[in-house]
Amino acid sequence: MKKAFTHCRIFTLDEQGTEYENGCIIVNDDTIEYIGEHHDAFVQACDEQIDWTGKWVMPGLVNSHVHIVMNILRGSAEDLSLHRWLNEKIWPLESKFTTEIAEVSALAAMIEMIKSGTTTFNDMYNPIGFDCLHLYETIKQVGLKGFFSYSLFSSTGSDRAEADTLAKARETAKHIQRDGSLISTMIAPHSPYACSTSLLRKSAELAAELGLRLHIHVSETEREVELIRSQYGLTPVQYLRELGFFQAPTIFAHGVVLDERDRDILLETETTIAHNPVSNLKLGSGIADITALTRLGVNVAIATDSVASNNNLDMFEELRIAALLQKGVRKNPELIPVDEILRMATHNGANGLGLSQTGMLKQGYAADFITIHPADKIHLTPFTHALSHLVYSASGKDVQDSVVNGKFVMRDKQLLTLDEEHISWELNRLFDHLQ
Amino acid sequence: MKKAFTHCRIFTLDEQGTEYENGCIIVNDDTIEYIGEHHDAFVQACDEQIDWTGKWVMPGLVNSHVHIVMNILRGSAEDLSLHRWLNEKIWPLESKFTTEIAEVSALAAMIEMIKSGTTTFNDMYNPIGFDCLHLYETIKQVGLKGFFSYSLFSSTGSDRAEADTLAKARETAKHIQRDGSLISTMIAPHSPYACSTSLLRKSAELAAELGLRLHIHVSETEREVELIRSQYGLTPVQYLRELGFFQAPTIFAHGVVLDERDRDILLETETTIAHNPVSNLKLGSGIADITALTRLGVNVAIATDSVASNNNLDMFEELRIAALLQKGVRKNPELIPVDEILRMATHNGANGLGLSQTGMLKQGYAADFITIHPADKIHLTPFTHALSHLVYSASGKDVQDSVVNGKFVMRDKQLLTLDEEHISWELNRLFDHLQ
Repeated sequence: MKKAFTHCRIFTLDEQGTEYENGCIIVNDDTIEYIGEHHDAFVQACDEQIDWTGKWVMPGLVNSHVHIVMNILRGSAEDLSLHRWLNEKIWPLESKFTTEIAEVSALAAMIEMIKSGTTTFNDMYNPIGFDCLHLYETIKQVGLKGFFSYSLFSSTGSDRAEADTLAKARETAKHIQRDGSLISTMIAPHSPYACSTSLLRKSAELAAELGLRLHIHVSETEREVELIRSQYGLTPVQYLRELGFFQAPTIFAHGVVLDERDRDILLETETTIAHNPVSNLKLGSGIADITALTRLGVNVAIATDSVASNNNLDMFEELRIAALLQKGVRKNPELIPVDEILRMATHNGANGLGLSQTGMLKQGYAADFITIHPADKIHLTPFTHALSHLVYSASGKDVQDSVVNGKFVMRDKQLLTLDEEHISWELNRLFDHLQ
Repeated sequence: MKKAFTHCRIFTLDEQGTEYENGCIIVNDDTIEYIGEHHDAFVQACDEQIDWTGKWVMPGLVNSHVHIVMNILRGSAEDLSLHRWLNEKIWPLESKFTTEIAEVSALAAMIEMIKSGTTTFNDMYNPIGFDCLHLYETIKQVGLKGFFSYSLFSSTGSDRAEADTLAKARETAKHIQRDGSLISTMIAPHSPYACSTSLLRKSAELAAELGLRLHIHVSETEREVELIRSQYGLTPVQYLRELGFFQAPTIFAHGVVLDERDRDILLETETTIAHNPVSNLKLGSGIADITALTRLGVNVAIATDSVASNNNLDMFEELRIAALLQKGVRKNPELIPVDEILRMATHNGANGLGLSQTGMLKQGYAADFITIHPADKIHLTPFTHALSHLVYSASGKDVQDSVVNGKFVMRDKQLLTLDEEHISWELNRLFDHLQ
């Protein structure tokens, strides 16, 4: 089954920043077979031709750190620091979660991601009170690409609880791995402060054993770094290295508080930093120095974190704020030009997730792309400097179409796999139960 | 003519943060006659009843510093510092402006403002190459409330040029003042660095003579502050005080680089700071310390600046980033709670413009309000914590209706006074002439 998407303006976001004015993408199943200026013979040979005249096309956005089950908590905990936010608000509310809440909440997040241009996400969550594999069965139907990982905690600290959580994480990971859907998985210990030394070590071993990546919150706040240093005499990054992390490729969410040695370790180990600028600002954690990281050569990706600390999943907003912050804080407007920040929110994210042929529009790459139709959008006018508009003027609400693995999940603003009205109604109903 | 807007959820943003669940607003001509829970008798007595079931209503946003004529320059000058941005890109492009460009560009900005929920704006611009009063005649038809001010420059530095620019500014201001439309005016010398001492002094005298406010860029960058200090031995704020500023109420755009004495002067003189967080970040100017200003009691308002340094006019985005920045930079998530930042973007702005009965929804206040319909917006779900969603999840693109002075300028997303398709087409056409 070959499809041709024709007559559009394409921003490939490849290494050369290639653009096509009257572009065309030929998709064979889930892969881009041809991308370039319009080619009549290629188009005529396709089974389906989709006329995208006037539309701008770019790779789908990659949200490298999110918690989709938390969508029901939007706005529930404002103006608090991370540790109070977790202990006083988020964890008590989460303890009331049911499988139904988890499912509706996750689907709401997926609707929000599709509508705002995300095609791949990287989730982790500790499934207290609900059936994790049941949730996996639901979300794999949606058509988004993603990683859904069982997050490990040392809640009681007993050996038995630890063995139990490891067994569940292993079972979940192996099931998802075997299943081979669009949703894959990682091993995801929550953080250096919420996991015992032993649980962290065993998590790293499990990842190596199953050939999976690790996904963990690291160096999010000064308080965390001080705590780990006072307990182990090391920064969180150095502590994790001691415990055998980095045998498997790793995604670190946050990395707000890093020293020079930490950054060198990240570079050597090819670790990806999932940068969550809005969540870090909102919880008062600070601003990650992604300028230092990218200058060194560390792979930096962009992420929203959950709506409980953001409070939305709009990657356009996130990437814009990421670029603005570096310019403003370092008082250097030349930092992080538009092509660089767009790459962080697409290919860098995909690369960190092990999807090296995703996040750019190139022959042989995954057919994951989105469109924006600028015609009725005065905030994207004049059209000439469109790449700049994608960073500084567009928002997720401008996204018109979303194609993942060659299939539409949204077409001209119509969701094809989810019922927004129903999910929204259910989310409101279930929210009342939580109170 | 009395209108009733009924069955809506109202966020008055008044001093007490009053909200109405099944609210109703009765508007008599341009003023709110009743606001509160639904009252059948009041509604029945109206000439027109508008059913706003399910909608959220809040005061229209007040953009306290903008340059509407610059909308054609969106994306034209990226990744440059303020001084290079002005000298190498913006000023050369502006020198090619014509009356037609100015008009289309300003109307594009007004469409963007209406669509994103701004009901009052504060503009200043130096009308090189076009007829300022012609432009005024055009924009006063739109139905937005605003201030349109002739910006004074010392370009050549000659006495004759100075007398000439003062005469034009006086003539423009007096015409607009006499005309008494929804568009009012101020006296607007560009900045301490772009005006001579004599021009600044005479501008302040002119404002006092005509009973108008002053609007000026002040203390935007460290470079500006160093320059003024090296020339006059004073900070820009102190320098302006020496020159007789503050006889009239004043709006200072930016205020990024202020010392303690500057802040005391702003407080004593009841000066308003128009805070432009995105523009300040994007040009690498830094982050204004609005926490220090608001703690002291200085009136802080929110503004977008022009699209050339933002690059959009979405006040929802601007207020969100303003709040996030203070939390993140000071590592204190309790700073600038949601009601406070919403007030900065509404009543504080209006107050700074001398519109003391605008920006809150109260009996006797201006009937300037906007709606958002959350029903098909998963990013505003669950609905309960709506005030928080207005700050952290909503965007200008969510705005459904806009009423200014009791009249619709947008109704269910339909613009009533402007033709977006035509203006967008013209803006693209004229952009090509600029190159």
